[in-house]
Amino acid sequence: MLALDDEGPLHRQTYRALRGAILEGRLRPDTRMPSSRSLAKELGLSRNTVLQAFDQLVAEGYATAREGAGTFVAGSLPSRAHGGGKTEQGGKVESARLSALGRRIQTRIPPGAASWSLRREPLRFDFRYGEPGYADLPLNTWTRLLGRRARRLSVRRLAYQPPGGAAELREALADYLARARGVVCEPEQILITQGSQQAIDLCVRLLVDPGDTVVLEEPHYTGFSFCLAAAGADISHVPVDEDGLRVEELDSIGEASLACVTPSHQFPAGGVLSLPRRLALLDWAERSGAYLLEDDYDGEFRYDSRPLECLQSLDRDGRVVYVGTASKILFPALRIGWVVAPPALVRSFHDAKAITDTGTASLEQLAFADFIREGHLERHVRRARQRHASRRSALLEAVEAELGDRADVIGTGAGIHVVLRFESLPALDVGRLRRACRERDVGVYPVAPFYAQAPEHAELLLGYASLDEEEIRTGIGRLREALDTV
Amino acid sequence: MLALDDEGPLHRQTYRALRGAILEGRLRPDTRMPSSRSLAKELGLSRNTVLQAFDQLVAEGYATAREGAGTFVAGSLPSRAHGGGKTEQGGKVESARLSALGRRIQTRIPPGAASWSLRREPLRFDFRYGEPGYADLPLNTWTRLLGRRARRLSVRRLAYQPPGGAAELREALADYLARARGVVCEPEQILITQGSQQAIDLCVRLLVDPGDTVVLEEPHYTGFSFCLAAAGADISHVPVDEDGLRVEELDSIGEASLACVTPSHQFPAGGVLSLPRRLALLDWAERSGAYLLEDDYDGEFRYDSRPLECLQSLDRDGRVVYVGTASKILFPALRIGWVVAPPALVRSFHDAKAITDTGTASLEQLAFADFIREGHLERHVRRARQRHASRRSALLEAVEAELGDRADVIGTGAGIHVVLRFESLPALDVGRLRRACRERDVGVYPVAPFYAQAPEHAELLLGYASLDEEEIRTGIGRLREALDTV
Repeated sequence: MLALDDEGPLHRQTYRALRGAILEGRLRPDTRMPSSRSLAKELGLSRNTVLQAFDQLVAEGYATAREGAGTFVAGSLPSRAHGGGKTEQGGKVESARLSALGRRIQTRIPPGAASWSLRREPLRFDFRYGEPGYADLPLNTWTRLLGRRARRLSVRRLAYQPPGGAAELREALADYLARARGVVCEPEQILITQGSQQAIDLCVRLLVDPGDTVVLEEPHYTGFSFCLAAAGADISHVPVDEDGLRVEELDSIGEASLACVTPSHQFPAGGVLSLPRRLALLDWAERSGAYLLEDDYDGEFRYDSRPLECLQSLDRDGRVVYVGTASKILFPALRIGWVVAPPALVRSFHDAKAITDTGTASLEQLAFADFIREGHLERHVRRARQRHASRRSALLEAVEAELGDRADVIGTGAGIHVVLRFESLPALDVGRLRRACRERDVGVYPVAPFYAQAPEHAELLLGYASLDEEEIRTGIGRLREALDTV
Repeated sequence: MLALDDEGPLHRQTYRALRGAILEGRLRPDTRMPSSRSLAKELGLSRNTVLQAFDQLVAEGYATAREGAGTFVAGSLPSRAHGGGKTEQGGKVESARLSALGRRIQTRIPPGAASWSLRREPLRFDFRYGEPGYADLPLNTWTRLLGRRARRLSVRRLAYQPPGGAAELREALADYLARARGVVCEPEQILITQGSQQAIDLCVRLLVDPGDTVVLEEPHYTGFSFCLAAAGADISHVPVDEDGLRVEELDSIGEASLACVTPSHQFPAGGVLSLPRRLALLDWAERSGAYLLEDDYDGEFRYDSRPLECLQSLDRDGRVVYVGTASKILFPALRIGWVVAPPALVRSFHDAKAITDTGTASLEQLAFADFIREGHLERHVRRARQRHASRRSALLEAVEAELGDRADVIGTGAGIHVVLRFESLPALDVGRLRRACRERDVGVYPVAPFYAQAPEHAELLLGYASLDEEEIRTGIGRLREALDTV
């Protein structure tokens, strides 16, 4: 159907051929584009080449990327499109001249997808993932500590603060992380960030050049992949199973700058990286020269056994950049995260933070330091773990009772979400299932956006931390009803 | 055989010691562990403590419990000589493999220079620049508003927030900026950032590629130059005079991606960009395809006439990215800044912010929105302007009286700092002058770090917002004494 014209690089030829098909109406407005895989096959090109062409079509407004659904021909074409080939490097919005990073953000990240805050619907049984149990929070204590610090603001506290963060918080965190997660560090190695996302972004900026190979779990956290897409990294996806990243498959990857991993509770599939794999991963990092970004986003919550100590505790070699967040143990709007950098990278992280934003706001850092030092955090985490364990039991029992062998539950050992896998439901039916759930006041979320190559069967991500047991049971019951209609 | 390391509870110490022995092969795979009873005796611990350590080793896969036969070292660990203790965590500084940006940060930014928070000395007459009048702040009001918002935290406020910032603050700012600075925008064009530094960093990331030409004032704000150095920009320095940037010299510069300017009060030299130059600058931007980053860091404070409206208010073409901050009108530790992006760049700024840190913490945004909407900000700015005017008069009179024609004062029309220029004092003597001042409890600061090519005569930067009139007079008197000794 498509003919390439032999001029310029292959992705440019592909882009021109597709643009021609769109302008001539052979690819019709608002229809799904052929899959990059099948096009690559048809044209005898690498999939990456086709994806580059797609990126450019999206950038120029000939096509749109819909989250989890693929790429579609645009419904209304930009008027200049009809003129032909003049806008080949322009942005979607006329006249914006962006850097390469700016263009990659525009073309490689689906509109709105980078924001965790969107798409909130007022559903009564909302299995929204990625949020903590708000009902468990000791908010009175938090408000009291915050108020105490606010009333004591002195000139020293009002002025510019050290870019690494408040000394009080770095010391309190070094103690807490040693006790709770086995992190081995001095307070000087800790950098306080704007949530874990800034930690990830700084890490990628400091360690990854455009074209560098970076290993990513498949499925993966989009907080990694969006940053890496913006950075122009060449992402190598390595699949996970119930024991986390299949580390043995790393051997086929040569040099890499970085691997982004979630050993405590793989996001989203939920496996806990086994000890032999942890050691093998560290070995690989040494051999390949890669750093390991360990995102320990919910490592506090493990149920069937003690929490595993973090990967960083096994790192003899300074390869692990450990990243954590207050979003799951307190709440996301706090925007406090941390990096524990290996000694060789400490100064770079602090300098990068200084030129990025001169440092994170201090008031809530100080309140959080008090919260840790006065024992509130560990008390809260202990209680939340019990509450989550009870919610988790309710969920697993309800799924067993309502869905039986229609779904597998995976990733149940840790964290505050699970994945429901429907082997006999095609991925295409997820949209209908979600709508049927929504009609019953139930919110469920597809795993597909977290895959580079989504599986052919349906998978749902269910967070359970912000529901109580009764709501969980009712919600799963209604999910079953919804499933019956699909 | 085992040595404990004195950190954390005894069972944790025991666990670490045993883990070390296993990883180093002193306890060999598939052999029986020493009995808990004998270990307890050897280490002088309770047997229960040792059993807790065994439990953890088993939980993590270092050992296996065999029914009726005791605990055995695991058979399947990859061989890996391994430490795991704090002292063994290494990583040599010279071995850190950084990205091009990471290397530029390391090589092009003087150590520590990127941090505004350093070098604070307890001097009684400290003419430190870049900080507001802390004594003028309505802190009680601020604390009250903050407390009110803190007590009203709801789930909606605790969850992830829109990356662009709180709607309340963006609306309040759009109104305030229109009234106070002539900014022309919709709330949707505003992005709340971590202080103005993040606004600058996002702007540079979105608009500047390595090797791109970027125009910078000479002397210039280092918050620009450090970001640009990290980005690998090719910086063209254009001198300033008492009317700000010498725009006519831009004609020798061809294409540029960006010009970073401070039209309201040139930092650090203090000129106010004249209207003809503003118009010429906008013309140049259109011709050369450059964006203009307008950093309006202290535009509220002008004394001899009304504050000039900002450059953005003259922009018909979407060339100006307007940047502001709460650091001078409230206080720096707040870390609230804003971008007003031209329409074509709005989405890019929001997406970049989302992948950078998912958004700025919300509590202080909401308190700041209330502070603006209830009229406190404009009342405070009005009062602070009067106080600063009075401090400025005291400073100018004292300099005239004490220094006469030994120094020129420049940049006095606006802002909260001035430059003292000592035409007959060599730049080399600034160090001696500062030491002589310090001995007299007076803090003064060299302008030299803000030049790409510092002049041959001495120049000092004097902030006056955080001193009262009496302190200013005494401080300048002592500066004269110090000068006499040099």
